[in-house]
Amino acid sequence: MSNQMMTLKKLAELSNFSVSTVSKALADNPEISIKTKNKIKKLAEFYNYKPNITAKNLKERKTRAIGVIIPNILAHFFAKVLSGIEKEATEKGYNIITCISDESFEKEVKSIEMLANGSVDGFIISVSKETFVKENYKHLQGAIDKGLPISMFDRVTDKVYCDKVVINDFQSSYTATEKLIKSGCKNVVFVTPIHHTSVGLDRVSGYEKALKDILKRKGKPKVLVIEDYQKFTDSFTEFLKDNKVDGVVAADELSGIYTMNLLIGAGHRVPEDVSVIGFTDGILAGNSNPPLTTVDQRAVELGKVAANNIISRLEDSQKEAITYETTVLETYLIERGSTKFK
Amino acid sequence: MSNQMMTLKKLAELSNFSVSTVSKALADNPEISIKTKNKIKKLAEFYNYKPNITAKNLKERKTRAIGVIIPNILAHFFAKVLSGIEKEATEKGYNIITCISDESFEKEVKSIEMLANGSVDGFIISVSKETFVKENYKHLQGAIDKGLPISMFDRVTDKVYCDKVVINDFQSSYTATEKLIKSGCKNVVFVTPIHHTSVGLDRVSGYEKALKDILKRKGKPKVLVIEDYQKFTDSFTEFLKDNKVDGVVAADELSGIYTMNLLIGAGHRVPEDVSVIGFTDGILAGNSNPPLTTVDQRAVELGKVAANNIISRLEDSQKEAITYETTVLETYLIERGSTKFK
Repeated sequence: MSNQMMTLKKLAELSNFSVSTVSKALADNPEISIKTKNKIKKLAEFYNYKPNITAKNLKERKTRAIGVIIPNILAHFFAKVLSGIEKEATEKGYNIITCISDESFEKEVKSIEMLANGSVDGFIISVSKETFVKENYKHLQGAIDKGLPISMFDRVTDKVYCDKVVINDFQSSYTATEKLIKSGCKNVVFVTPIHHTSVGLDRVSGYEKALKDILKRKGKPKVLVIEDYQKFTDSFTEFLKDNKVDGVVAADELSGIYTMNLLIGAGHRVPEDVSVIGFTDGILAGNSNPPLTTVDQRAVELGKVAANNIISRLEDSQKEAITYETTVLETYLIERGSTKFK
Repeated sequence: MSNQMMTLKKLAELSNFSVSTVSKALADNPEISIKTKNKIKKLAEFYNYKPNITAKNLKERKTRAIGVIIPNILAHFFAKVLSGIEKEATEKGYNIITCISDESFEKEVKSIEMLANGSVDGFIISVSKETFVKENYKHLQGAIDKGLPISMFDRVTDKVYCDKVVINDFQSSYTATEKLIKSGCKNVVFVTPIHHTSVGLDRVSGYEKALKDILKRKGKPKVLVIEDYQKFTDSFTEFLKDNKVDGVVAADELSGIYTMNLLIGAGHRVPEDVSVIGFTDGILAGNSNPPLTTVDQRAVELGKVAANNIISRLEDSQKEAITYETTVLETYLIERGSTKFK
């Protein structure tokens, strides 16, 4: 049989496995046993199967639209990423359709279902908080199995095999903490409203590692988890009763601004008494008083790379389901008035 | 012939007019001449045509998805409206698919085309700047003619017959200007980055009318149009050379914040030397220093009403294409530190 006629579906029929299993086996997905992989790979080799045939078939039903699923539209970071995606996609002749999961697993699943029905050629996604908690990524694997590639940004998971783009969250947080300690802070606190996400956990780890490396036994990590912004003032005020604070690393922009305003309101001076660093260089950081020192999360670039990843996967048939890349963007600290670095 | 069998299409065939003309004539659209309208209406009456038959037909192909087209995702106002739409739609069992026109006519047209192809049951839209300049609304009328109702918010046009929800832009701007004058301001300037939109024009008119009513001949309107945010500092600095300013009404939130920061940077005190009022109560206003006095644009409520308008049109067949409503939401001024009202 010539490779012109062999398809994933036929391979599935011949091997008695499902299309999904065959696809995963050829992509070296660890969900599939080595025994099954070997069986399927041998069969594919025998029939001289090249996965790009599927890609070519897919090409014919192109919508030139990409579905983007973001968790929270009120966070300026995601709006900025979206603007980066839009810009890059427009340049390459693609349209963007956006759904907002609102941090809900159910809405994320529903959004994928809705758009996977012929509206888009593939997806760009940043995973919702609830999806991380549930650890259920079947809807994403399902889209890939259906021939709709996925490109992830910022909030990513190892459980789905696809192209990803992130910043170096661990290192960024480490550097921010290190800077605070070296500028004289002895009680650096980490404040996080995104504790359950991949990026939230990486940032906490970077903070903890920096404390351990630099302060040795002299500083104990203090992490204030904000479950809900409406409880921010209460949680933080309670925290201040029992804890000394002279430095704060906040896991996003809004929590950085809230921290600063709360501290100033409680009679602390920023940066004289407490230095504050936030994540994301959004619209708030440059316009607060004092302006907030931030880790530039490179939102627009994240969006551009995420768009490029999906477009090149859609256009380059050789790339299909074989190897995936994770791009790590370097961040830098934008020093403003909320810290007293030399 | 019973009304069970009469459709818009049959009426079009019988009358020798297009479906679009028949639909417009029955909806009393002023594009259609009175003569044509009378002819079509008589025919419809003769065949006992009830437009809800079409609506019932439409019901069978429901996607339970609504397309939302917004001009600019980086403006917090639109993100807030979108969150209001999402909340209301979710409660009513509808999903939201969003496209961003990026203030471009072409992208707006493309977005409508893309989603009108069976992905959504109707649209919620805030019109792009470029569409206002071009005065071309055929793509919107086209969607309506196709049986996809439209609900407009904030940036609306009289040229399209559909449900609309706006705030009282004229009155809000009038009140803000009046407040500034009554607090002692003699040189109130209006700063606008949205001069070409319906809301931008209404806000300028409100400002001008207040000056005329209250200051009589003593104050001349001074409007600073910002064509591009990147030129904000240059334009404003140039303007300050030739003009005294002791009060500013800014047509959106970001221009209010920029104005304040620019004035403070140039050595003016806010509010001692200059009072500033912005539009939109977004995330910036409450977190700036001093916090910005704003006209609450009621973004979340706008979104909820816009969602309700489209959903009730989709669900209530009697409503089809007969009368449209424009809801005007009242605004109020949120007084903060950037003004010195008593």
